[in-house]
Amino acid sequence: MSGKAVFYHAGCTVCLDAERGFAGALDPAAYAVEVVHLGETSERLAEAEAAGVKSVPAFVIDGAVYHINHGADLSALRG
Amino acid sequence: MSGKAVFYHAGCTVCLDAERGFAGALDPAAYAVEVVHLGETSERLAEAEAAGVKSVPAFVIDGAVYHINHGADLSALRG
Repeated sequence: MSGKAVFYHAGCTVCLDAERGFAGALDPAAYAVEVVHLGETSERLAEAEAAGVKSVPAFVIDGAVYHINHGADLSALRG
Repeated sequence: MSGKAVFYHAGCTVCLDAERGFAGALDPAAYAVEVVHLGETSERLAEAEAAGVKSVPAFVIDGAVYHINHGADLSALRG
Protein backbone atom coordinates (compact mmCIF):
# COMPACT_ATOMS: atom_id res chain seq x y z
CA MET A 1 0.00 0.00 0.00
CA SER A 2 1.33 3.42 -0.82
CA GLY A 3 1.08 6.71 1.05
CA LYS A 4 0.45 10.07 -0.50
CA ALA A 5 3.28 12.50 -1.18
CA VAL A 6 2.71 15.93 -2.71
CA PHE A 7 5.67 17.91 -3.98
CA TYR A 8 4.92 21.65 -4.11
CA HIS A 9 7.21 23.83 -6.17
CA ALA A 10 7.27 26.99 -8.24
CA GLY A 11 9.59 26.16 -11.08
CA CYS A 12 12.61 27.78 -9.42
CA THR A 13 16.10 26.34 -9.76
CA VAL A 14 16.13 25.16 -6.17
CA CYS A 15 12.73 23.56 -6.76
CA LEU A 16 13.76 21.72 -9.90
CA ASP A 17 16.90 20.50 -8.22
CA ALA A 18 14.91 19.14 -5.29
CA GLU A 19 12.48 17.53 -7.68
CA ARG A 20 15.31 15.84 -9.50
CA GLY A 21 16.84 14.69 -6.23
CA PHE A 22 13.73 13.53 -4.44
CA ALA A 23 10.48 13.40 -6.33
CA GLY A 24 11.84 10.82 -8.71
CA ALA A 25 13.76 8.99 -6.04
CA LEU A 26 10.94 8.09 -3.68
CA ASP A 27 10.11 4.43 -3.75
CA PRO A 28 7.04 4.08 -5.96
CA ALA A 29 6.04 1.13 -3.79
CA ALA A 30 5.98 3.45 -0.75
CA TYR A 31 4.55 6.68 -2.13
CA ALA A 32 2.39 7.95 -4.94
CA VAL A 33 3.98 11.32 -5.74
CA GLU A 34 1.94 14.23 -7.07
CA VAL A 35 3.88 17.25 -8.35
CA VAL A 36 2.12 20.62 -7.97
CA HIS A 37 3.48 23.79 -9.60
CA LEU A 38 2.05 26.56 -7.40
CA GLY A 39 3.08 29.24 -9.85
CA GLU A 40 0.77 27.71 -12.47
CA THR A 41 -1.98 26.40 -10.19
CA SER A 42 -2.36 29.24 -7.71
CA GLU A 43 -5.77 27.89 -6.75
CA ARG A 44 -3.88 25.28 -4.74
CA LEU A 45 -1.96 27.82 -2.65
CA ALA A 46 -4.60 27.68 0.09
CA GLU A 47 -4.35 23.91 0.24
CA ALA A 48 -0.56 24.07 0.54
CA GLU A 49 -0.79 26.76 3.19
CA ALA A 50 -3.35 24.76 5.17
CA ALA A 51 -0.99 21.78 5.11
CA GLY A 52 1.70 23.95 6.72
CA VAL A 53 3.84 24.74 3.70
CA LYS A 54 5.75 28.01 4.27
CA SER A 55 8.08 27.93 1.29
CA VAL A 56 8.85 25.87 -1.77
CA PRO A 57 10.13 23.38 -2.58
CA ALA A 58 8.33 21.28 -0.01
CA PHE A 59 6.93 17.82 0.36
CA VAL A 60 3.78 16.97 2.25
CA ILE A 61 3.98 13.28 3.06
CA ASP A 62 1.11 11.68 4.89
CA GLY A 63 0.31 15.07 6.42
CA ALA A 64 3.83 16.00 7.53
CA VAL A 65 5.60 18.96 5.88
CA TYR A 66 9.23 18.79 4.77
CA HIS A 67 10.77 21.99 3.50
CA ILE A 68 13.76 21.21 1.33
CA ASN A 69 16.32 23.99 1.07
CA HIS A 70 14.65 27.30 0.24
CA GLY A 71 13.48 28.50 -3.16
CA ALA A 72 10.70 31.01 -2.46
CA ASP A 73 8.30 31.90 0.32
CA LEU A 74 4.71 30.99 -0.31
CA SER A 75 3.76 34.64 0.24
CA ALA A 76 5.87 35.57 -2.80
CA LEU A 77 3.68 33.36 -4.99
CA ARG A 78 0.46 35.21 -4.35
CA GLY A 79 -0.45 37.20 -7.44
CA MET B 1 22.74 1.14 -10.76
CA SER B 2 22.27 3.07 -7.57
CA GLY B 3 23.58 6.46 -6.49
CA LYS B 4 24.88 7.32 -3.08
CA ALA B 5 22.70 9.14 -0.55
CA VAL B 6 23.95 10.07 2.91
CA PHE B 7 21.46 11.17 5.54
CA TYR B 8 23.14 13.26 8.27
CA HIS B 9 21.26 13.76 11.50
CA ALA B 10 21.80 14.28 15.22
CA GLY B 11 19.05 12.27 16.82
CA CYS B 12 16.76 15.29 17.21
CA THR B 13 12.99 15.03 16.82
CA VAL B 14 13.05 16.89 13.50
CA CYS B 15 15.84 14.57 12.35
CA LEU B 16 14.03 11.38 13.27
CA ASP B 17 10.88 12.63 11.61
CA ALA B 18 12.76 13.39 8.40
CA GLU B 19 14.42 10.00 8.58
CA ARG B 20 11.05 8.32 8.91
CA GLY B 21 9.67 10.37 6.04
CA PHE B 22 12.55 10.11 3.63
CA ALA B 23 15.43 7.83 4.44
CA GLY B 24 13.19 4.81 4.33
CA ALA B 25 11.18 6.08 1.39
CA LEU B 26 13.91 6.51 -1.18
CA ASP B 27 13.76 3.91 -3.88
CA PRO B 28 16.35 1.26 -2.97
CA ALA B 29 16.81 0.68 -6.68
CA ALA B 30 17.83 4.35 -7.11
CA TYR B 31 19.86 5.07 -3.98
CA ALA B 32 21.92 3.27 -1.40
CA VAL B 33 21.19 5.27 1.77
CA GLU B 34 23.75 5.63 4.55
CA VAL B 35 22.52 7.12 7.82
CA VAL B 36 25.12 9.07 9.81
CA HIS B 37 24.46 10.25 13.38
CA LEU B 38 26.78 13.26 13.73
CA GLY B 39 26.23 13.44 17.47
CA GLU B 40 27.74 9.98 17.85
CA THR B 41 30.29 10.09 15.04
CA SER B 42 31.67 13.60 15.38
CA GLU B 43 34.72 12.53 13.36
CA ARG B 44 32.47 12.83 10.32
CA LEU B 45 31.51 16.47 10.96
CA ALA B 46 34.32 17.68 8.71
CA GLU B 47 33.12 15.45 5.89
CA ALA B 48 29.55 16.76 6.23
CA GLU B 49 30.80 20.34 6.35
CA ALA B 50 32.96 19.82 3.28
CA ALA B 51 29.91 18.51 1.42
CA GLY B 52 28.09 21.76 2.22
CA VAL B 53 25.90 20.63 5.11
CA LYS B 54 24.97 23.62 7.31
CA SER B 55 22.37 22.01 9.53
CA VAL B 56 20.74 18.68 10.21
CA PRO B 57 18.76 16.84 9.10
CA ALA B 58 20.25 16.90 5.61
CA PHE B 59 20.73 14.59 2.68
CA VAL B 60 23.76 14.60 0.42
CA ILE B 61 22.69 12.88 -2.77
CA ASP B 62 25.24 12.45 -5.49
CA GLY B 63 27.08 15.51 -4.17
CA ALA B 64 24.06 17.84 -3.84
CA VAL B 65 22.94 18.98 -0.38
CA TYR B 66 19.29 19.02 0.65
CA HIS B 67 18.51 20.54 4.03
CA ILE B 68 15.18 19.23 5.27
CA ASN B 69 13.42 21.49 7.77
CA HIS B 70 15.78 22.53 10.56
CA GLY B 71 16.85 20.54 13.58
CA ALA B 72 20.24 21.90 14.61
CA ASP B 73 23.08 23.88 13.11
CA LEU B 74 26.22 21.91 12.46
CA SER B 75 28.14 24.36 14.63
CA ALA B 76 26.01 23.31 17.62
CA LEU B 77 27.27 19.75 17.26
CA ARG B 78 30.93 20.55 17.79
CA GLY B 79 31.91 19.34 21.24
